[in-house]
Amino acid sequence: MTAKSGQTDSSLDAFYHDLTSHDLAPLWTQSETLMPPQPLPKTRPWLWKWSTLQALGARAGKLISIDRGGDRRVLSLANPGLGGEPFATSTLWGAVQYLGAGESAPGHRHTPGAIRFVLEGEGVWTTVDGDACDMHAGDLILTPSWMWHDHNNPTDHPMIWFDGLDLPTVISLDAVFFEPYQPDELQPVRGHNISERIYGGRGSLPRMDGHLSPSSPLLVYRWADTDRALAGLLEAGGGPSATLEFINPTNGRSVLPTLSCEMHRILPEGPTRTQRKAGSSIFVVFNGVGHTVIDGMRFDWERGDMLAVPSWTQVTHEVFEPSNLFSISDAPILKALNLFREEHSDSPQEIVSKFEPRI
Amino acid sequence: MTAKSGQTDSSLDAFYHDLTSHDLAPLWTQSETLMPPQPLPKTRPWLWKWSTLQALGARAGKLISIDRGGDRRVLSLANPGLGGEPFATSTLWGAVQYLGAGESAPGHRHTPGAIRFVLEGEGVWTTVDGDACDMHAGDLILTPSWMWHDHNNPTDHPMIWFDGLDLPTVISLDAVFFEPYQPDELQPVRGHNISERIYGGRGSLPRMDGHLSPSSPLLVYRWADTDRALAGLLEAGGGPSATLEFINPTNGRSVLPTLSCEMHRILPEGPTRTQRKAGSSIFVVFNGVGHTVIDGMRFDWERGDMLAVPSWTQVTHEVFEPSNLFSISDAPILKALNLFREEHSDSPQEIVSKFEPRI
Amino acid sequence: MTAKSGQTDSSLDAFYHDLTSHDLAPLWTQSETLMPPQPLPKTRPWLWKWSTLQALGARAGKLISIDRGGDRRVLSLANPGLGGEPFATSTLWGAVQYLGAGESAPGHRHTPGAIRFVLEGEGVWTTVDGDACDMHAGDLILTPSWMWHDHNNPTDHPMIWFDGLDLPTVISLDAVFFEPYQPDELQPVRGHNISERIYGGRGSLPRMDGHLSPSSPLLVYRWADTDRALAGLLEAGGGPSATLEFINPTNGRSVLPTLSCEMHRILPEGPTRTQRKAGSSIFVVFNGVGHTVIDGMRFDWERGDMLAVPSWTQVTHEVFEPSNLFSISDAPILKALNLFREEHSDSPQEIVSKFEPRI
Amino acid sequence: MTAKSGQTDSSLDAFYHDLTSHDLAPLWTQSETLMPPQPLPKTRPWLWKWSTLQALGARAGKLISIDRGGDRRVLSLANPGLGGEPFATSTLWGAVQYLGAGESAPGHRHTPGAIRFVLEGEGVWTTVDGDACDMHAGDLILTPSWMWHDHNNPTDHPMIWFDGLDLPTVISLDAVFFEPYQPDELQPVRGHNISERIYGGRGSLPRMDGHLSPSSPLLVYRWADTDRALAGLLEAGGGPSATLEFINPTNGRSVLPTLSCEMHRILPEGPTRTQRKAGSSIFVVFNGVGHTVIDGMRFDWERGDMLAVPSWTQVTHEVFEPSNLFSISDAPILKALNLFREEHSDSPQEIVSKFEPRI
Repeated sequence: MTAKSGQTDSSLDAFYHDLTSHDLAPLWTQSETLMPPQPLPKTRPWLWKWSTLQALGARAGKLISIDRGGDRRVLSLANPGLGGEPFATSTLWGAVQYLGAGESAPGHRHTPGAIRFVLEGEGVWTTVDGDACDMHAGDLILTPSWMWHDHNNPTDHPMIWFDGLDLPTVISLDAVFFEPYQPDELQPVRGHNISERIYGGRGSLPRMDGHLSPSSPLLVYRWADTDRALAGLLEAGGGPSATLEFINPTNGRSVLPTLSCEMHRILPEGPTRTQRKAGSSIFVVFNGVGHTVIDGMRFDWERGDMLAVPSWTQVTHEVFEPSNLFSISDAPILKALNLFREEHSDSPQEIVSKFEPRI
Repeated sequence: MTAKSGQTDSSLDAFYHDLTSHDLAPLWTQSETLMPPQPLPKTRPWLWKWSTLQALGARAGKLISIDRGGDRRVLSLANPGLGGEPFATSTLWGAVQYLGAGESAPGHRHTPGAIRFVLEGEGVWTTVDGDACDMHAGDLILTPSWMWHDHNNPTDHPMIWFDGLDLPTVISLDAVFFEPYQPDELQPVRGHNISERIYGGRGSLPRMDGHLSPSSPLLVYRWADTDRALAGLLEAGGGPSATLEFINPTNGRSVLPTLSCEMHRILPEGPTRTQRKAGSSIFVVFNGVGHTVIDGMRFDWERGDMLAVPSWTQVTHEVFEPSNLFSISDAPILKALNLFREEHSDSPQEIVSKFEPRI
Repeated sequence: MTAKSGQTDSSLDAFYHDLTSHDLAPLWTQSETLMPPQPLPKTRPWLWKWSTLQALGARAGKLISIDRGGDRRVLSLANPGLGGEPFATSTLWGAVQYLGAGESAPGHRHTPGAIRFVLEGEGVWTTVDGDACDMHAGDLILTPSWMWHDHNNPTDHPMIWFDGLDLPTVISLDAVFFEPYQPDELQPVRGHNISERIYGGRGSLPRMDGHLSPSSPLLVYRWADTDRALAGLLEAGGGPSATLEFINPTNGRSVLPTLSCEMHRILPEGPTRTQRKAGSSIFVVFNGVGHTVIDGMRFDWERGDMLAVPSWTQVTHEVFEPSNLFSISDAPILKALNLFREEHSDSPQEIVSKFEPRI
Repeated sequence: MTAKSGQTDSSLDAFYHDLTSHDLAPLWTQSETLMPPQPLPKTRPWLWKWSTLQALGARAGKLISIDRGGDRRVLSLANPGLGGEPFATSTLWGAVQYLGAGESAPGHRHTPGAIRFVLEGEGVWTTVDGDACDMHAGDLILTPSWMWHDHNNPTDHPMIWFDGLDLPTVISLDAVFFEPYQPDELQPVRGHNISERIYGGRGSLPRMDGHLSPSSPLLVYRWADTDRALAGLLEAGGGPSATLEFINPTNGRSVLPTLSCEMHRILPEGPTRTQRKAGSSIFVVFNGVGHTVIDGMRFDWERGDMLAVPSWTQVTHEVFEPSNLFSISDAPILKALNLFREEHSDSPQEIVSKFEPRI
């Protein structure tokens, strides 16, 4: 759409000025930006090194104390494409949380839903609505929307884990509510790992009474179970890789209505097939060594590294030893809104550059 | 509604005769039978003794051979209230199936859905759509609607298990389809326990592609898992009894759209609270000793005994050692049709008589 | 499966006797009856003539009075295949209900769900939970499960309509509950056609608060709307016939969870294509003249006639003037239980016999 | 959380610098901004006057021609709180579209879903996947996600309508795909108002074959139907106001999975009760005169005015003649993600200021 012939520039300028002064904007000057042929995410493919995260987490532990009135000792992945926003991707919060020996992070609740994935350590728990969920390496812990939670480290060593949240989306929907736990900093503990005993059956559930939340009532997913399930999938599928999704056992769906959590086991048998999907992800390397190619850029990774994958980018993994990658994504949101798309390609992806992390 | 005053009996008789001869029936003479204040099931509370079932199964094994063209060596529970129909309750088929050493039961499929619950034995498998599902004591095995299945006993000892089907309901809906497997008696086996490796994760599923059946893709539920889940429920609930339902992990619902399977663990701490629900059940005693009171009649049971529970009867269990009761019910049907009701009473139920089984 | 060679008949006889005396039945002697290759409904294709129904209804009006403590003046279609049961098909109750001038049928409620389809008349209403639903020719009125209902005829002429219920299925599930309205015979009326004003929007609903029943909250479906919708479908589809299903506007599903109600408009342009489906139906001729061929038997019908269609029979309609057929079926039940099947054939069905109704 | 005592400012500064240089951000310095006690929308309550929109639309019609390669003559509501973004609220696009006499807007499709609400005019249609949907005053027209659409004005007068889209949310999810129609500018027309004839039944649907999209297959909602439904609701409810939601007739849900469309009829009987809900809305005054108070600021409106309502603001309407307000909101998204909240208050809201529109 263009100016009609014979229109002077000055009448157009006046028109655009009048639009702006009446809080209006013309579509025709910006329609390609607003509606590109395919997604143009600001999120950049990006890698954070575990060595860096760990070192800076430890410095935070020394410099920043936990007090009531403050919040968490959390370093969030700030994707450089997002103009200073503390988000790993346009829809996902990713962070490392550092809890010093003997410390507790006080209780609160909020509408954004969160998951914790434990990279290493032992002896720490997160209390969720009174249920103290013990955290071990490889475990996934949920703190669903609007459930009270605090973190507790009674050991003599610090603990560090990955935090994943749907926060950017809940902010963009203007739907964040937050409440500190009162009157104490920590909730009373009803017991340890209660949800695991109630909802952790393999192929079974307690006979249900009443209505359940769309978030999973099972709050902990143990590495030993994940490990066994991946081994089973690889045996049954015969493939060089297997992916499982952690699920809400009461409906077979994603653990939170806003977040999908997956574990990928990849064997050193060449690159996985290339795929892309609408919506973004964060990968966290639980163990192994390999690289991921995103739209032609190669990211070399090892244990603990974290990787942001933007929407609709082409992704291939290749490993040099058996590797386990944990990931979170916004796929449940896109599926709920009928916006999900996915494509696979069996042809390999050409590597055109290599990412150099800042160490 | 009564005959109008002044009407002679003869004009009424002629009228009723004319109705019948025109394939019509008056509602007013039968409305209380058709629509009683609460269900009047023909199904009678009934108990079959394991000692009887086992002995007659063994006799069937000696007398009746398995050949192509025939079917299964199955003794069905024929509730005496149902007028000779081979059904345990008005909606449920229950039976013992006996497979001799070295025998196989040929493949077929049918729209009625079936479950197998193994009371004792080892070394036998049921092949379901090519997946050989090994059967051990306490395991639950599914053969969902319209999936090919055959049973195989390569051992040198006979095997006997409980069969549960939704057959009476599918018959009443005129929806039974049946097809023998061709051209061989047995399906080729793709592997053993494949579904367990794919769908048997604890809190996880393989990343899904495409549409799933409403029946569970997980075909085997192991006693070890059931045992652990019940222990967890008792720990968490603190109660004298716990009930779990086996579920389709892809949707958290009953294993078949027509059958619910449950396991009840009851400790010797007095009678359970009395309850009744619309729809019928069959209980199979996996182990333990106790009795069940149904509408005031006491049924003493021990390992292997089977018990029919009619709709809307009052039920209390009491055990004399820790006991595990497996059960099937039609609850998913009643729930799907918005006909389910359930009532609990904390007051004990008076025992007014005792059932004497025919041994 | 046959007796093993060498077994004497007498040992077999003794074995079968022992089975019976222990309330057991052998599967192998009856497996073909229990599990036929395809449904073997006892329901027979059958036709009831309107002239007969009307005349016998009028005789019932003269002979049988409505009093408290009685029930309805209802003549139920008793399919001759069902051994004297007052059911039109194995799953469906069909009947004509006759309400004399100035009469009321007292209030009650029951778990079986019912629909009323009005063949002729005016000025009568059914009160459903206080909402007086006016009944005109061609209207469909719902009295869903467990809702209070009474019928009222303040006019000086009798009224007769078709009753359809899911009663046989609810009986077979032992889930019938019934309660008379107390203390009066009739409910107080909150207003007329309230549900129509609240839920009768075209493409709209009131903004919802809270949970809705699986039965439709819209209780009346007017002939004028049905007529217009069928005309629209024929225009858009261009075909010689069109079928609409009445729906619960809150979920787009069948009006009751157990009953589907449809209207079929057929133009005199040759036979419709042959189809069969699992589950049974009752057709009620609202107007028109034609015949229906069911598994080769021809049923000639005209206005008001009623036709039972058994499960899995081949059905073709042909009309001699534009005709409207109302029908009810058990399809929602079969679909909910994953038992529904349907087949179409474009080749015509051969007529091998003609049904002669008893007039 | 604060710096530990004894830490010098310089070590903290160095630490924060290192975080930034490694693409990390501390949570503790920004947690109150990220997680406020309740939503802090950037969207401001705002009003656009119809007189302004119409005048600027007409100027756009004179100044800007429609050509292939361009897009739409659309003036988008640019909420002054959103820093220059052309969005009415943080999640909703609202705009007026101006189509001159004899013009057509070329065909395209995109993943964002759109609705059109017609304020005035006649004789124009939007073609959606070949179905030419005629547009009259008060009609709602859908162009769901990924369906081809073009707009056509064969009349001799310009036409102007309201466009509503879920665009901001689809952008924030990086899920926008766009495709121009090829090779012509306009789609071939299969007919006019086809969806209305197929899916426009009142309480009925065509018998369904196969799978339906989560977007409504009914593409037009007529003012006459809306008017009648609102009158019915007011009669039944007796209240001073009534709200209906336009629905997808195949599932009873919102017309698009991402957008809810409602019509509110308010009578001049005092202020409506105050309410607030998570998620934002745009109101478009179809007719009437009144004002809306949002968090204490009064917005006076008349026919054609448009009003942005931010998340979690308190809203009361009051009218001086019977008025009809059309609105769109993001409620289906918040509900799908379990983030919806709503509150009502019967006490009136104090007016503390008055909005002065720029005219």
